[in-house]
Amino acid sequence: MTQSNSRDRELRERAAAVIPGGMYGHQSVGLLPDDYPQFFERGEGAHIWDADGNRYLDFMCAYGPNLFGYAHPEIDAAFVRQLGQGDTLTGPTGLMVELAETLVRMVSHADWAIFCKNGTDATTMALTTARAHTKRRIVVRAKGAYHGALPWCTPRPAGVIDSDRAHQIFCDYNDVASLEAAVAEAGDDLAAIFAAPFRHDAFIDQAEPDAAYARKARELCDRTGALLVVDEVRAGFRLSRDCSWSRLGVSPDLSTWGKCLANGHPLSVMLGNEKARRAAASVYVTGSFWFQAATMAAALETLRLVRETDYLERITALGDRLRAGLDARARAAGFGFRQTGPATMPLFLFDDDPDLRKGFCFSSEMLSRGVYVHPWHNMFLCAAMTEADIDQTLDAAEAAFAVLKRQAPALGPVEKLAFLSGAH
Amino acid sequence: MTQSNSRDRELRERAAAVIPGGMYGHQSVGLLPDDYPQFFERGEGAHIWDADGNRYLDFMCAYGPNLFGYAHPEIDAAFVRQLGQGDTLTGPTGLMVELAETLVRMVSHADWAIFCKNGTDATTMALTTARAHTKRRIVVRAKGAYHGALPWCTPRPAGVIDSDRAHQIFCDYNDVASLEAAVAEAGDDLAAIFAAPFRHDAFIDQAEPDAAYARKARELCDRTGALLVVDEVRAGFRLSRDCSWSRLGVSPDLSTWGKCLANGHPLSVMLGNEKARRAAASVYVTGSFWFQAATMAAALETLRLVRETDYLERITALGDRLRAGLDARARAAGFGFRQTGPATMPLFLFDDDPDLRKGFCFSSEMLSRGVYVHPWHNMFLCAAMTEADIDQTLDAAEAAFAVLKRQAPALGPVEKLAFLSGAH
Repeated sequence: MTQSNSRDRELRERAAAVIPGGMYGHQSVGLLPDDYPQFFERGEGAHIWDADGNRYLDFMCAYGPNLFGYAHPEIDAAFVRQLGQGDTLTGPTGLMVELAETLVRMVSHADWAIFCKNGTDATTMALTTARAHTKRRIVVRAKGAYHGALPWCTPRPAGVIDSDRAHQIFCDYNDVASLEAAVAEAGDDLAAIFAAPFRHDAFIDQAEPDAAYARKARELCDRTGALLVVDEVRAGFRLSRDCSWSRLGVSPDLSTWGKCLANGHPLSVMLGNEKARRAAASVYVTGSFWFQAATMAAALETLRLVRETDYLERITALGDRLRAGLDARARAAGFGFRQTGPATMPLFLFDDDPDLRKGFCFSSEMLSRGVYVHPWHNMFLCAAMTEADIDQTLDAAEAAFAVLKRQAPALGPVEKLAFLSGAH
Repeated sequence: MTQSNSRDRELRERAAAVIPGGMYGHQSVGLLPDDYPQFFERGEGAHIWDADGNRYLDFMCAYGPNLFGYAHPEIDAAFVRQLGQGDTLTGPTGLMVELAETLVRMVSHADWAIFCKNGTDATTMALTTARAHTKRRIVVRAKGAYHGALPWCTPRPAGVIDSDRAHQIFCDYNDVASLEAAVAEAGDDLAAIFAAPFRHDAFIDQAEPDAAYARKARELCDRTGALLVVDEVRAGFRLSRDCSWSRLGVSPDLSTWGKCLANGHPLSVMLGNEKARRAAASVYVTGSFWFQAATMAAALETLRLVRETDYLERITALGDRLRAGLDARARAAGFGFRQTGPATMPLFLFDDDPDLRKGFCFSSEMLSRGVYVHPWHNMFLCAAMTEADIDQTLDAAEAAFAVLKRQAPALGPVEKLAFLSGAH
């Protein structure tokens, strides 16, 4: 399959002149195989088209925001209708109240909502709310867990100074003893325990949350008066229609949501319980566009689909079908191929592949067959995917495994990922 | 004039249950006169309608984002067109490159752009970029200047801890000696000087920037190697089609923009010069919705209007007409009425009015006559306003001054602003 990339190359050259590094953030392809396109031009349903018009079944879903399909007719119609009425105004509209009421009804631990734009706005607000509530400073969180890209949490420390990271203690996810030790170290200064719904760090196998770990986090917060924060920004509504730890019988005090909340329209939210209400009201947080009405209309429509359709059962079944099919094909080809995390948010890693050379080769072969997968970040399923899409993916994978089998012995190191194996 | 507020009251009651404090952030009416509506339902051109259908000529312009009129036909059409093609995707579109090129052409000090969502994203990125560039920590900024609502800069400190504010030194805006003293105190640890385009702090008279102050800031940065940051988030494109300090002959290294950049669609940006490029590329910043294509299409259309129309000359002339007309009417009524700041971003304060009881009475009288003014925050003019709108405002003001004259002797203290006069 020949693919053109001349327009992408031209855009990269122009970008290199006017954007530092040519591109920044989680959508930079700097750490992806060289043939991955940097620029796109279209999205519809489960598919994206790159700047050269190549079409892909998209397992990244915009890194999460696309839950019901790109350019979703009903969600975008709700947005556009409200845009004509009023969007960013001198105050909020009644839609903000309706949306808060809707979330409070849907998410069992939540008694109130504060809306914002970035996922990091919500996690930072949770940190500040916990500190205001407890009048203490320390947050305990898991090593390697992503909670956003502000100085207190960004995974790459350039420009960050020590004081930005003060009063944080790290534990190992799912390790009760490590969590207890971190809380003990915090002493009487513990403000919050942050937790991801499951371990979805980049570059390593994902892990379901251990119920004992979740219960211990709750117990330690109850004992110390600290607040328990579950960060659902990435995983929200792909594991449950409620906070995902409700499946473990654990209620957080605060939860943070974003990404797919309005199916790609910019919105995030911190939800909280009665205990944390007064502290949340005391914290001054705001943003120029936080009260956009059109985005809230889109969120109301997205949440209606969450409640009224079987999207979750469907994407779970599609994820199971994908996992079983890939597993069979990888085994037939003789590869140790680990698929981890929930079926709706899979991550693929090959055994004996420290610098991901196999993963890069496999991903490139998938891409060239019209399937956009990621070699080291969890992926996302969306409700616009069909069984036929999954079967196309499995066909592509069978061919990709075959190519990989031929090429594996001769694959060179992936220079751009040399840091993974400590080889640079 | 009787106005209904029953729907607003109902929404406030519902909001009190599901939003901490009932409303948060800069659009909370908690510190406005009691008759100010909290909820709106519509915006068109220069007008907003509150939740009860009352219509106002809006001098807040959504606190800045509305530059060309609410629900602007061409800007929103560009947005909607791109929304149907692709908005939040798995990568950016070519529009991002085009938008960066456009800003680099328009803003004289800029060689590159990094887009984000909140104004605070841009100011925080500037802080981090300056620290990465200099490998130093301290930022000098003016007392009372607003640069956003994250822990390092939020004006209300609940939930903020000392380390969040470490390594900041404050000076007095427009005071060269104070600026020099702050820089001297920073010693060899100065990373950046932040500056507002003019003094636009709440509750006090605005002040144009002193050219000597601006030049001194530039000189101190040149001497120490620190970066000069001009924060145009609030004032951008209402003073100049370039960075506003270009009018003083001063080029910053970094500037931050937001609010009206896409006429209300959520977008902000940090612009920078060649010197700061490498540091900007080293900082890890990102957000789920930062690469939204529809918003960038709206920004391109907004910037086309900035370049190709006489909007700036028109809003300046309207602002001058407003100022002269209000001045005459205030004098005729015997009030010391201070109008400060640029004509396009006025602030009104009465003499001898420490707790703003006169300002509150005047503003309420304007509101009841269909003109939404703010008693203590700078306002904004937009290009959808007409001379007839200004004349309606002047008629309303004449009546409002007359009412104020009758009522002034009997006005009671404004309890909610008692903190201003230190009376609580």
